[in-house]
Amino acid sequence: MSRTVVSSATREVVIGFDRPFVMIGERINPTGRKLLAEEMKAGDFSRVEADARAQVEAGAHMLDINAGIPLADEPALLAKAVQLVQAITDVPLSIDSSIIEALEAGLGVYQGRPLVNSTTGEDEVMERVLPLVARYGAAVVAISNDETGISMDIDVRFEVAKRIVERAADHGIPSHDVVVDPLVMPIGALGTAGQDAFALIRRLRDELKVNTTCGASNVSFGLPNRHAVTGTFLSMAIGAGMTSAIMSPLHAEVKTAVMAADVLAGNDRDCAAWIRANRDPNAGAGEGGAREGRRRRR
Amino acid sequence: MSRTVVSSATREVVIGFDRPFVMIGERINPTGRKLLAEEMKAGDFSRVEADARAQVEAGAHMLDINAGIPLADEPALLAKAVQLVQAITDVPLSIDSSIIEALEAGLGVYQGRPLVNSTTGEDEVMERVLPLVARYGAAVVAISNDETGISMDIDVRFEVAKRIVERAADHGIPSHDVVVDPLVMPIGALGTAGQDAFALIRRLRDELKVNTTCGASNVSFGLPNRHAVTGTFLSMAIGAGMTSAIMSPLHAEVKTAVMAADVLAGNDRDCAAWIRANRDPNAGAGEGGAREGRRRRR
Repeated sequence: MSRTVVSSATREVVIGFDRPFVMIGERINPTGRKLLAEEMKAGDFSRVEADARAQVEAGAHMLDINAGIPLADEPALLAKAVQLVQAITDVPLSIDSSIIEALEAGLGVYQGRPLVNSTTGEDEVMERVLPLVARYGAAVVAISNDETGISMDIDVRFEVAKRIVERAADHGIPSHDVVVDPLVMPIGALGTAGQDAFALIRRLRDELKVNTTCGASNVSFGLPNRHAVTGTFLSMAIGAGMTSAIMSPLHAEVKTAVMAADVLAGNDRDCAAWIRANRDPNAGAGEGGAREGRRRRR
Repeated sequence: MSRTVVSSATREVVIGFDRPFVMIGERINPTGRKLLAEEMKAGDFSRVEADARAQVEAGAHMLDINAGIPLADEPALLAKAVQLVQAITDVPLSIDSSIIEALEAGLGVYQGRPLVNSTTGEDEVMERVLPLVARYGAAVVAISNDETGISMDIDVRFEVAKRIVERAADHGIPSHDVVVDPLVMPIGALGTAGQDAFALIRRLRDELKVNTTCGASNVSFGLPNRHAVTGTFLSMAIGAGMTSAIMSPLHAEVKTAVMAADVLAGNDRDCAAWIRANRDPNAGAGEGGAREGRRRRR
């Protein structure tokens, strides 16, 4: 039973097989958000703060923080964003960069035990990221691609994930602190993207016994009514055993799907969170309720 | 690859592992619908016809027809309902009764190849229902309980299903014409109802290689916002391999979850049905689309 424990100065979050799904807010990421990128580069973090508050209010258990802006001082920006967000929320953070100096700057100012997002299976990346993760006693996201790119063969992706877990162990990082991202492709471009992800998630859980995460909204890229596709993907991924995702809790249908999937996966005990979040006394009542509940009693 | 082929006089529907999920409309069932029961008993089938039209319009691929009204002439009512519904729609029907004479009356007037709903694993029931199914060359729903009731042990439920499949074979009914109902309990009463159903559906598919169905709305009985729970259950069940359900296509969130699950399970080729059903040109566009699609390219 793998448990990945992350924390802020005052709050602990556990990613685990028998735990409610962990929603990691995706919004604080300037990639493709031109206005946010310009503001951050100019030292204006008001939108970062607003996005942090909104996501936590919507139910995010953690927040991903990315400051990847071309031609900007990413280490300084990421450290600043981490500090500001930690000053106004108490959720643990995922420190997200492909630049080692930025990860180091973020880790340097972080209070608690963060998730480092990410290492790939590329030797050069692992040899830079894993020692840093070990030094700070953090947990790490492992993305299942290597020097050859993202394999379309899920057996290869599984082997890459396994290799990262083994390499992490060499650096003293236990497998329960490695959260594997199976890499979810857009279903509009690759019709097997869903089946591939679910099969890989199941193997990662059953064979490697690791927690999993992914950038969930990727799956619906290019499709109409995409939040419905993302929400359904998440519920099916939870059914396959996924334990966290980098996603937006701001879209009602996505969040509702995750909460309902927690109920159905048996991770929302006595449906308590569901009932609390859906308190409308009129919902679910009426003729239909009684009828449908009785339809199999003969 | 099991294919259960059902038909009306003019239309064929295939329930199968690599096929879009088959939605069997649940509405034409007087159990708990007092007004419908009174009307049917008095020979007024206008609501039956309206419910048939509405469900087909909402996307039902088949309709379940039940006429179980206490102290009424169920065989005559079921036969009449079957004839009327076949006169106004062309979807194949599921003829639903626990009374053998009613099943026989429905089969007698049916045009095409129906689904008979249902036999249990009780010897006495199998010995009455299976010969009838064989005689009419129909397909049959197999409910995985027997004389001892519904076991809470899914291994026992699997064995009951296996026994029905074997007994059907004795009567010349091939396993691809047996659609197993794993029996889905209300999650509000039994916290493992979801996990149990998913595990059983997976085994029924992988080991028995049969199609599956269930009364989907049962799972959310008693919960608030129950259609969201039912929809999420269906998407997770599709992820586990379920191929049909008796359900209501009239609730948008339930139908949307099924359609999105078909996309993600790889059964909606090129997302064609999804795109057709969600044609709003503004949906899914905008800044977020581009950003999220790019977030893993580094």
